[in-house]
Amino acid sequence: MSNFLVTGAAGFIGSSLAQNLIEEANRVVTIDNLSTGFRDAIPSGVIFYEGDCYDDSVIKKLESYKFDAIFHIAGQSSGEISFDDPVYDLKSNTQSTLQLIKLALKIECKKFIYASTMSVYEDQPKRPISEKDNLKPKSLYAVGKLASENYMRIFQKYGLQTTSLRLFNVYGEGQNLINLRQGMVSIYLAQALKNKHILVKGGSERYRDFVYIEDVVDAFMCVYNRSGYNNKIYNVSTGKKTTVDSLIKKIINILNEDISVEYHGSTPGDQFGVYGDFSKIKNELGWSPKVGLDEGLERMIKWAKDQI
Amino acid sequence: MSNFLVTGAAGFIGSSLAQNLIEEANRVVTIDNLSTGFRDAIPSGVIFYEGDCYDDSVIKKLESYKFDAIFHIAGQSSGEISFDDPVYDLKSNTQSTLQLIKLALKIECKKFIYASTMSVYEDQPKRPISEKDNLKPKSLYAVGKLASENYMRIFQKYGLQTTSLRLFNVYGEGQNLINLRQGMVSIYLAQALKNKHILVKGGSERYRDFVYIEDVVDAFMCVYNRSGYNNKIYNVSTGKKTTVDSLIKKIINILNEDISVEYHGSTPGDQFGVYGDFSKIKNELGWSPKVGLDEGLERMIKWAKDQI
Repeated sequence: MSNFLVTGAAGFIGSSLAQNLIEEANRVVTIDNLSTGFRDAIPSGVIFYEGDCYDDSVIKKLESYKFDAIFHIAGQSSGEISFDDPVYDLKSNTQSTLQLIKLALKIECKKFIYASTMSVYEDQPKRPISEKDNLKPKSLYAVGKLASENYMRIFQKYGLQTTSLRLFNVYGEGQNLINLRQGMVSIYLAQALKNKHILVKGGSERYRDFVYIEDVVDAFMCVYNRSGYNNKIYNVSTGKKTTVDSLIKKIINILNEDISVEYHGSTPGDQFGVYGDFSKIKNELGWSPKVGLDEGLERMIKWAKDQI
Repeated sequence: MSNFLVTGAAGFIGSSLAQNLIEEANRVVTIDNLSTGFRDAIPSGVIFYEGDCYDDSVIKKLESYKFDAIFHIAGQSSGEISFDDPVYDLKSNTQSTLQLIKLALKIECKKFIYASTMSVYEDQPKRPISEKDNLKPKSLYAVGKLASENYMRIFQKYGLQTTSLRLFNVYGEGQNLINLRQGMVSIYLAQALKNKHILVKGGSERYRDFVYIEDVVDAFMCVYNRSGYNNKIYNVSTGKKTTVDSLIKKIINILNEDISVEYHGSTPGDQFGVYGDFSKIKNELGWSPKVGLDEGLERMIKWAKDQI
């Protein structure tokens, strides 16, 4: 039996990862502040500490554990929302990383795996962007994620294996259908289901690289199994760009209902478009995405209809 | 009369800048936590608030002021020390910037000028490094400074004029001669004066670009006078590289005493060497360094002898 800390297991990605780990008969501990996640989403059997990962008193409670890996998934996860309370964003995405790295060093946990983001990249690359390309965060959220990546690169020298996964647009079952400012697919889908009307804050030609939750969980597991005490950064993407317009048409098509679409305003810190080259993680760890957007949306929409 | 906030006016650079501003009959307010600065160093006439710039309750006290510019100089200023308490470093260098930008927006202060660092650059460039070159922070300190620069670039869109000065190795009168982990010139000079022995934590062939305090204060004033509501980053450097060995020989030569030198160990997060191209600030704002290293050291040593 292996022991894991998965921060944010009440949230979309954290809960899926924790579920996967606990099914394989591991012991899983989580910290979650329930600010956007749900207590009910924490898989049964997971040991739950309620609180913030940047809080000394919460971290202290974990010092008696031995973990084979720390998966740091918790954090404020919206570029838009990062402008509402910049200091909370910094604490939640960056100070938390420092606290958990300190914990890893203290309890001699050798593997530290971080949910970073494609938001760190320069906007509108000419081709699928690779890990070596230019960085230019446009949101406060992305600034804090990039700082965490930098911390991990530095702390790797202290004997840790550190990995940042730059997640592209993750979607799928378990995504938050209540918060309409977080997660492009869930925002449009929730509006379509609830209001038969989708309000898009930004242009229709913006594009994203949508990656399915099961594939993302697989990527975390591939990283856990990697060897070497070094620092790595990997894109978790599909290499395919999908415009907002095309995504919405797919959603409406699957729902097969009469849904109106309105484009209005913009979103602070929004990228026009980024899509990602995943050849590094494919070549080094053998990961590639398995579920295409049409299939992923079918599955997600089937699930979502039961939620609303 | 203009009104300024200069954070860190009990410290080396902040006190020099505040002194310069107050001599020109301006009103100057400062925040300083006196963690490494000295109450006595705050120029007389400066309005002093004791506390941390990252602390809401301290920032709140300044909301009734109108400032023509905020110079954010305060912060934990040592790469080495950033490893002692990473969370304090992040708060002091990054959370503080967010708090002060929020203040600037609230009180409609249009100019925000930040003391950044050459530590954000990739180590050992082949030529004097320019603002467009690769970034690769090696210390936690540098990660936090870079995050602040990124925040400023983003917030410029809210109608601010933001400027980051990437200060190279600043030295001169007023540098802390007590803290032997902060400031290469002051560390060696203080040891030479006190112990007749210099312990160097790192190799003799490492090099730096030393820039004199008066020139640095001039650079801040040039930036204050610039126009345009945009974001700019400038090196404040001399374009000259000086090895540790050569610096120490200059110091010993000026002191004209028998001083032993010992090279031992290393410093966490230390760069081997960086020197800076200052053509951007020269071309755009007309700044260039006036005081050479020999003259600057003469002046500093004359001052330091009276301190010890």
